[in-house]
Amino acid sequence: MTSRFKNITIVGRADDSRVSEPLESLRAHLNKIGANLVDNAAVKDADLIIAVGGDGTMLYASRLALDSRAPILGINRGRLGFLADVTPDDMIASVDHVMRGEYSVDSRLLLKARLLRADGGESVAYALNDVVLQRRDTGRMVDFETRVNDVYVNTHAGDGLIVATPTGSTAYALSCGGPIIEPQLDAVVVVPICPHTLTDRPIVISADQPIEVRLLYRDDTKAELTVDGFSLGPIHHDDKLTISAANKRVTLVHPPGYDFYGILRSKLFWGRDNRKRES
Amino acid sequence: MTSRFKNITIVGRADDSRVSEPLESLRAHLNKIGANLVDNAAVKDADLIIAVGGDGTMLYASRLALDSRAPILGINRGRLGFLADVTPDDMIASVDHVMRGEYSVDSRLLLKARLLRADGGESVAYALNDVVLQRRDTGRMVDFETRVNDVYVNTHAGDGLIVATPTGSTAYALSCGGPIIEPQLDAVVVVPICPHTLTDRPIVISADQPIEVRLLYRDDTKAELTVDGFSLGPIHHDDKLTISAANKRVTLVHPPGYDFYGILRSKLFWGRDNRKRES
Amino acid sequence: MTSRFKNITIVGRADDSRVSEPLESLRAHLNKIGANLVDNAAVKDADLIIAVGGDGTMLYASRLALDSRAPILGINRGRLGFLADVTPDDMIASVDHVMRGEYSVDSRLLLKARLLRADGGESVAYALNDVVLQRRDTGRMVDFETRVNDVYVNTHAGDGLIVATPTGSTAYALSCGGPIIEPQLDAVVVVPICPHTLTDRPIVISADQPIEVRLLYRDDTKAELTVDGFSLGPIHHDDKLTISAANKRVTLVHPPGYDFYGILRSKLFWGRDNRKRES
Amino acid sequence: MTSRFKNITIVGRADDSRVSEPLESLRAHLNKIGANLVDNAAVKDADLIIAVGGDGTMLYASRLALDSRAPILGINRGRLGFLADVTPDDMIASVDHVMRGEYSVDSRLLLKARLLRADGGESVAYALNDVVLQRRDTGRMVDFETRVNDVYVNTHAGDGLIVATPTGSTAYALSCGGPIIEPQLDAVVVVPICPHTLTDRPIVISADQPIEVRLLYRDDTKAELTVDGFSLGPIHHDDKLTISAANKRVTLVHPPGYDFYGILRSKLFWGRDNRKRES
Repeated sequence: MTSRFKNITIVGRADDSRVSEPLESLRAHLNKIGANLVDNAAVKDADLIIAVGGDGTMLYASRLALDSRAPILGINRGRLGFLADVTPDDMIASVDHVMRGEYSVDSRLLLKARLLRADGGESVAYALNDVVLQRRDTGRMVDFETRVNDVYVNTHAGDGLIVATPTGSTAYALSCGGPIIEPQLDAVVVVPICPHTLTDRPIVISADQPIEVRLLYRDDTKAELTVDGFSLGPIHHDDKLTISAANKRVTLVHPPGYDFYGILRSKLFWGRDNRKRES
Repeated sequence: MTSRFKNITIVGRADDSRVSEPLESLRAHLNKIGANLVDNAAVKDADLIIAVGGDGTMLYASRLALDSRAPILGINRGRLGFLADVTPDDMIASVDHVMRGEYSVDSRLLLKARLLRADGGESVAYALNDVVLQRRDTGRMVDFETRVNDVYVNTHAGDGLIVATPTGSTAYALSCGGPIIEPQLDAVVVVPICPHTLTDRPIVISADQPIEVRLLYRDDTKAELTVDGFSLGPIHHDDKLTISAANKRVTLVHPPGYDFYGILRSKLFWGRDNRKRES
Repeated sequence: MTSRFKNITIVGRADDSRVSEPLESLRAHLNKIGANLVDNAAVKDADLIIAVGGDGTMLYASRLALDSRAPILGINRGRLGFLADVTPDDMIASVDHVMRGEYSVDSRLLLKARLLRADGGESVAYALNDVVLQRRDTGRMVDFETRVNDVYVNTHAGDGLIVATPTGSTAYALSCGGPIIEPQLDAVVVVPICPHTLTDRPIVISADQPIEVRLLYRDDTKAELTVDGFSLGPIHHDDKLTISAANKRVTLVHPPGYDFYGILRSKLFWGRDNRKRES
Repeated sequence: MTSRFKNITIVGRADDSRVSEPLESLRAHLNKIGANLVDNAAVKDADLIIAVGGDGTMLYASRLALDSRAPILGINRGRLGFLADVTPDDMIASVDHVMRGEYSVDSRLLLKARLLRADGGESVAYALNDVVLQRRDTGRMVDFETRVNDVYVNTHAGDGLIVATPTGSTAYALSCGGPIIEPQLDAVVVVPICPHTLTDRPIVISADQPIEVRLLYRDDTKAELTVDGFSLGPIHHDDKLTISAANKRVTLVHPPGYDFYGILRSKLFWGRDNRKRES
């Protein structure tokens, strides 16, 4: 085999019964066609990452991919995913397509979240979906301020704020009233979560502008920062959160026939309107 | 047969190929079991109206029912309807249930729309779903004022206004951001259509209060009034529109097993979330 | 003075600088006109509660009122409140109106939340605004099931659920997409918070039906229950939460000129549209 | 004076009493400082267009600007506009700034709408705000299909569709649930109007992709096409509408201190929340 993908890292939760079987078939098939299987720890040497599971596994694979230049092929374990767009039934055929060079690539924006704590500590994390600032206990709103490219935007009150990539626009941000953003657009959307001011609406900005978020002081404010669903811990009113486009991107590999709008139609039940009025 | 339903009026668009066949089966069956079929024109004598078709046919049947005290049994011609909740496959069995007295009744609020024109003319119409004031040409917003129970509520700008019954809350009003209202609640919802003021939100009020809507003068305003989708013609800035609960109601008859929330789940694809994040 | 309000309990946070001064003036005035000031602890003997502060103070007063039959007069400390509708400038004049019998009363629905824990423990709390089930940490959605009057409604996924009274419909529920409900309507609204299923919309039901909410089992689910902003602690998947209309209500007293829609217009900037297109 | 702006065209509705006076002052001032006033008909020769009025006048000026390379300075006649961001009080000082070369430029995307009719006719129009397909009479929904870059997106049912520029994102599209898009982003947003399918949400795409919209056949469908609020007449089910980025743009001129987010805050009452819960 003369594929450009020689060294392959496989990612998937073997303890998930819907994943373990396709994982086994995939390993056997790759061995048969002469690919080198490379351990997660050596992902730097991988030419391709194949992720088997749901969108959570894809998020995990995207973090691995940061240390590698390897693109990711996503195999879903059941329902079609936004990121893992190959069904288990099509897995072997899709892998063969990709190994033969029959695929399209799809480069996705990553966000870099940098939290500079008042005590001098610093956390950095990368998001394929979203960076979320959110109140931690249920009783009270949080107040926070946003700046884009060093220009003051607004002072918000509510449950928090999402900064989402186009990839993340179909995840949590969509539930909070954000728009769908096509994957190719170099933009991010800033979506307030349950904002107290009803006119506080999602804003789409170009991805090359840093966004700064500061929690305002309030007696009983408690907020937390999460990146792709993983907590970076509490955020305090003296901390400074900066979100900007990362200088790395994640590359997805799609077998022939990939159709972003087709996935949207399937996920959102478009064109299958059961409520439609009939005469 | 000793059913309380002796005289039955059948309603349905015989020119619709999906309706004509169930219409025929229904007629044959009712004749067989000894019911009297009563013409639309003599609906005053009917004990029961059976409507075969979509929700549009049900709206038509509800207008017939105003002149009769007959309840309505709705047979859908394909997909389950909000109002016509019997599928064609279950038609004969459901009719037999109902004729044997095995059914529940469900009394639905009707709205009475009264348009008093500046020239002295008057139009009155009844709505099972909704009364809609809407701009007629596309270029400009309409401005209008609402009062509830003679108390000034708001001056609105936008595409118009819906006043919907609980029955209508799952129709056009839902597409415009209104809530779902359970059929038993004696309430109406006032939903602005694409309001210019973003804080102009749906208001739910008790059904015993008249709502008055007045179009405000604007150079190029053109608006139209529709009741259950039927036009009452243009509305002008000197006209006075009053919407109140009618003193009649429409009674629906459901065979055993009727489940309002089950229909909602089916219509709105609840519990079949394709977008759900997986780990 | 022969007011029907002889014994009066005053409520307000004396440590708030905007409250302490009106509190003093109010006490002096009530002493002057011969009213008995009654301690919070003896609120059972009060004929009237006067609350000075924001809506939070009104929520506190409403809990006091549960142990008394006293109605509440709300004095705001700055901006007009939804519940405290008298401004400090109008305080003395408004109190005099009320003492002379010149007022309207406004009876508000209370919800009773009853949490029956799997371990047999039970918590009960009353809400003037809302009962909120919400995920406690930020990473994951919660899954929960709702039933109305023992009929299954839906299985939800998202950030949680609000059950709000008409009074609470203009608070948190409004930020989450719920409708405004006029205070007189005997209804509650069930509002999903950032629901994963986009068609999971607010439902308005009559207040006489109990609502049952059950958290579904999920590996890492953590949720909390709050009633009018006060935490009742975590809720677990075996717990059973029932929300129903309380058999007590809270009575508000308004000086002449109270106008619910006027307050809405002021709070929501209705009729002061700055975005309006001009030609 | 050695301004780069020698020849100036002034635009404004002299019949509007709030416009006629600033128009006169402006003419007098420009004459005094030695600028050449150029007639609308000769706008090709203009170096600068100054528009006095509301956003409607700005839309008119933007059409004039298509035949010229002149940028536009917008003077509002009362309230601050999104496009006309100079108040009458600041007019003379702002004009002086601009004439001295103290200004920023702001290049705005234009859309080109091309309607190819089934009978061979063709209409072309340019939009600074939006292209809107909308049903013309009130009774029935329209069905239509969208394609982006020749890829099928969705089949929609509802009141219609808006394709808006970033400039138009704060106009009608915002009332229909669209996001705010910052003016610099090279993107358009496709916003369904009161869509029947509740999951039919706004989509933001890059501006370099043509959007095709086709009305589907339905017995009683009547729809109209409007571009920046001006009707292009009815659209029929065999017509083909294509919307793409124009190869021209409109340039706005802002005096020092222009602040897009400041205008948003002012227009949307951000940071002046009257509903805010207080303790």
